[in-house]
Amino acid sequence: MNRDRKIIAIDMDGVLADIEAQFMAWYKKEHGVWISREERLGVPESEGFPDKTSIKKYVYTPGFFRTIPVMPGAIEAVKALMEDYEVYIVSAATEFPQCLTEKMEWLNEYFPFISWKNIVLCGDKSIIDTDYLIDDHCKNLDFCKGKPIMFNSSHNINQLHHTRVMNWNDVLDLFEKERSSAV
Amino acid sequence: MNRDRKIIAIDMDGVLADIEAQFMAWYKKEHGVWISREERLGVPESEGFPDKTSIKKYVYTPGFFRTIPVMPGAIEAVKALMEDYEVYIVSAATEFPQCLTEKMEWLNEYFPFISWKNIVLCGDKSIIDTDYLIDDHCKNLDFCKGKPIMFNSSHNINQLHHTRVMNWNDVLDLFEKERSSAV
Repeated sequence: MNRDRKIIAIDMDGVLADIEAQFMAWYKKEHGVWISREERLGVPESEGFPDKTSIKKYVYTPGFFRTIPVMPGAIEAVKALMEDYEVYIVSAATEFPQCLTEKMEWLNEYFPFISWKNIVLCGDKSIIDTDYLIDDHCKNLDFCKGKPIMFNSSHNINQLHHTRVMNWNDVLDLFEKERSSAV
Repeated sequence: MNRDRKIIAIDMDGVLADIEAQFMAWYKKEHGVWISREERLGVPESEGFPDKTSIKKYVYTPGFFRTIPVMPGAIEAVKALMEDYEVYIVSAATEFPQCLTEKMEWLNEYFPFISWKNIVLCGDKSIIDTDYLIDDHCKNLDFCKGKPIMFNSSHNINQLHHTRVMNWNDVLDLFEKERSSAV
């Protein structure tokens, strides 16, 4: 790694991977009902669907993490960030051991330009020390050592104490401003 | 986690898991020759055996990491450390994706008292921030943010710039002294 460059840690689910879209698609397939993002605003992920057991079941189902659609704009944005920053993928994954290999395969499919050296599959993220953390959960952002950046998601809409980005274009704009202010 | 306690990061291969013993056993099984620890003193792991291709082959072989014997004294020592410290397992693992699940299963067999929250499977360890790192490789210890502790291994015998522990009893003695000096 280039130690002169600032380091950005990027979460997977809800940031690189559109896990909400996957939850909605799997729920529709199982229950025949489409529960939109709007219906789950401000509701914790595990409680946003009428059958409260479904989400917990999906995250333990082989194939769930491997087939999550990539977040729009994520691939191009990460490539652009890597021109000026050291990028690490930091994903909470050890809770669901079956997802470890799936997450590596998924990254290899969509982000093959990220080295295995820059991938961290962990539990809690409190011992990760980077200059920035882009994540969709306060449980990670509240304890990070760098600058926390909240990636917008239906479940986090009411948690307003971190800088919020609505999408990957917003992320690029934010880092464009960071670079200008650092000059 | 208890944020008042100091944090120890502990490496797996060569520290919790006796990977040297596993290399020797697998090499003996494949080539019929026993290459002792004494014959490999100061030699990098991948070059310590006459057939230089073997080690590289083993670490990509399913089952290799799952069946490594536990390092003598490690289980009892980690349990003892956990009474006073927050312990994280930090293992370089993403280079060999097949080992991720095997490492989780291995930890679950020998260290079931360690939570998934405290397990980190990563590439390079430079973004890990803990008060101590117990590891057998300078590539990790040289860049760690806390106090580096070199766990003795045949391959690292000539790297003398870190505090060295010869075994898990030594680790307990060292932390006994750390606690006394902190009072």
